[in-house]
Amino acid sequence: MASPSWLLLLRTVRFGDTDAAGVMHFHQLLRWCHEAYEESLETFGVEPASVFPMAAADRPAGLEAPTVALPIVHCSADFRRPLVCGDPLVIALEPLRLEPGSFEVRYRFARSRSGEEPQEVARALSRHLAIEAASRLRCPLPEAIGRWLEASAVAAGGIRPL
Amino acid sequence: MASPSWLLLLRTVRFGDTDAAGVMHFHQLLRWCHEAYEESLETFGVEPASVFPMAAADRPAGLEAPTVALPIVHCSADFRRPLVCGDPLVIALEPLRLEPGSFEVRYRFARSRSGEEPQEVARALSRHLAIEAASRLRCPLPEAIGRWLEASAVAAGGIRPL
Amino acid sequence: MASPSWLLLLRTVRFGDTDAAGVMHFHQLLRWCHEAYEESLETFGVEPASVFPMAAADRPAGLEAPTVALPIVHCSADFRRPLVCGDPLVIALEPLRLEPGSFEVRYRFARSRSGEEPQEVARALSRHLAIEAASRLRCPLPEAIGRWLEASAVAAGGIRPL
Amino acid sequence: MASPSWLLLLRTVRFGDTDAAGVMHFHQLLRWCHEAYEESLETFGVEPASVFPMAAADRPAGLEAPTVALPIVHCSADFRRPLVCGDPLVIALEPLRLEPGSFEVRYRFARSRSGEEPQEVARALSRHLAIEAASRLRCPLPEAIGRWLEASAVAAGGIRPL
Repeated sequence: MASPSWLLLLRTVRFGDTDAAGVMHFHQLLRWCHEAYEESLETFGVEPASVFPMAAADRPAGLEAPTVALPIVHCSADFRRPLVCGDPLVIALEPLRLEPGSFEVRYRFARSRSGEEPQEVARALSRHLAIEAASRLRCPLPEAIGRWLEASAVAAGGIRPL
Repeated sequence: MASPSWLLLLRTVRFGDTDAAGVMHFHQLLRWCHEAYEESLETFGVEPASVFPMAAADRPAGLEAPTVALPIVHCSADFRRPLVCGDPLVIALEPLRLEPGSFEVRYRFARSRSGEEPQEVARALSRHLAIEAASRLRCPLPEAIGRWLEASAVAAGGIRPL
Repeated sequence: MASPSWLLLLRTVRFGDTDAAGVMHFHQLLRWCHEAYEESLETFGVEPASVFPMAAADRPAGLEAPTVALPIVHCSADFRRPLVCGDPLVIALEPLRLEPGSFEVRYRFARSRSGEEPQEVARALSRHLAIEAASRLRCPLPEAIGRWLEASAVAAGGIRPL
Repeated sequence: MASPSWLLLLRTVRFGDTDAAGVMHFHQLLRWCHEAYEESLETFGVEPASVFPMAAADRPAGLEAPTVALPIVHCSADFRRPLVCGDPLVIALEPLRLEPGSFEVRYRFARSRSGEEPQEVARALSRHLAIEAASRLRCPLPEAIGRWLEASAVAAGGIRPL
């Protein structure tokens, strides 16, 4: 069974992502992770304004501000192969509920240059905790995040061998 | 006549693009400009490795390293409306040859939220100079950049009233 | 008369500021500008929490949230010489009140490698507008910004020829 | 015994480091790590141009290009408390040789607001591998890095209980 669209994303390494060693500068990968997480939510159907805070004066009309924040409490990355400007990437996401109020996302980055076999180039992980923005106390995950986690778990189950 | 695909690009404002005022942090727009310029070249058919330097050991097989660099010698931006996380953007590019060895790109950013009229939110400009990477002396533009500039000028001509 | 301490700042080009051309990537300069503007205010004695918004739950005790935002409405930069990792920079700031509710900051970047004459390497400019954060309507500059502008104008007057 | 100057660094959270949640955006911490590693080497007395690659045309006179690259192969971070714009940080580094050709740096970030007890806010780690830039084959660490690791180990030994 193929991955659903919200768990398999594409991006291209850009010139500003590289450093003077001629390859992707390591911390850009963590930026890509968060952008992939946002794109996954959006592709799945979660309105960004329902999850991410933004200036009150500029919110899309008719949407309540989220009361729950989802800060990252841990992240890590492993770099296996250097990436150069223009390299096309496939990013596979594996979101996973950890407890009622936290989840993690695992990211696998593969380079898929035309005419070459896809190669895994990096892996990463981000761990998120739900807190009430006002009090900073732990709380349950927002309902939309819960649906995304559940659908992702079902999709992952479908592609795992018994 | 509609803009050709390489001059009209899409992107979404991401959470890491914002600051504590709740809106896009200004210098991210300049990053978007360069990424749009790269995407435009790629969509037009210019191989990134033929224009942008990269680590010799990691170049795609069979491609010569570019001998000409295209540093930005000037940039500017005007910010008209704040942007929030999730805002969908349309970026219109207008590349323009200035002299044998230099060109500029003008960028217009419009927000196109679903159910709202598109609104111009920002404009920007980058000016690029061709130099020989080894000597840093001015030189003619790479041939691929010349073709992109020419095709863009033709396309722009087609949508201008006589 | 020498520049006062809040108008003459130091920084070093770091590896992540460079790109695969081996030199500083252009948009990092705009980041440096904003950081120099913040450092200038702080050195002058303006509490960051009195000017920049931040999460309510994490504000230093006893400080009111600012009601005025100072978004950048225009910026520009001119790049004269490439910068490499480790280059030591001197940044000279020239803040200037434009109208009751706006100001600009001009930045001149000089490289001062040991054993070499200092060389101007770039110039930049940011223009800021005071708005009420809640309504986004134009308003007067915060009083602390006014004092910084006035003291900077006096200092600049002292070093200008008659 | 106090930490030597090259292992205890200062920096301030800047506005562009924050996101719309009003606090430091997670991946900026990884940028700070690399900048702290560079500043540590420089404070210890290692010339940046002897370790970090840069455009050949712009190298300081009289310095050979490094033949060894030190890519990061793994990084991680733990975030314990949110940081806001203006927060003053103390960064303690603990560099550690792992094998002849690799080392890691551990980073502890403490916030030291005036009038408050310093508080640990984050920890991070970067692991670096020495490779020949041309062949990408593993090789011994550059001699200057070796000296920095050894002096750091001696300094760390001095503050550890027997």
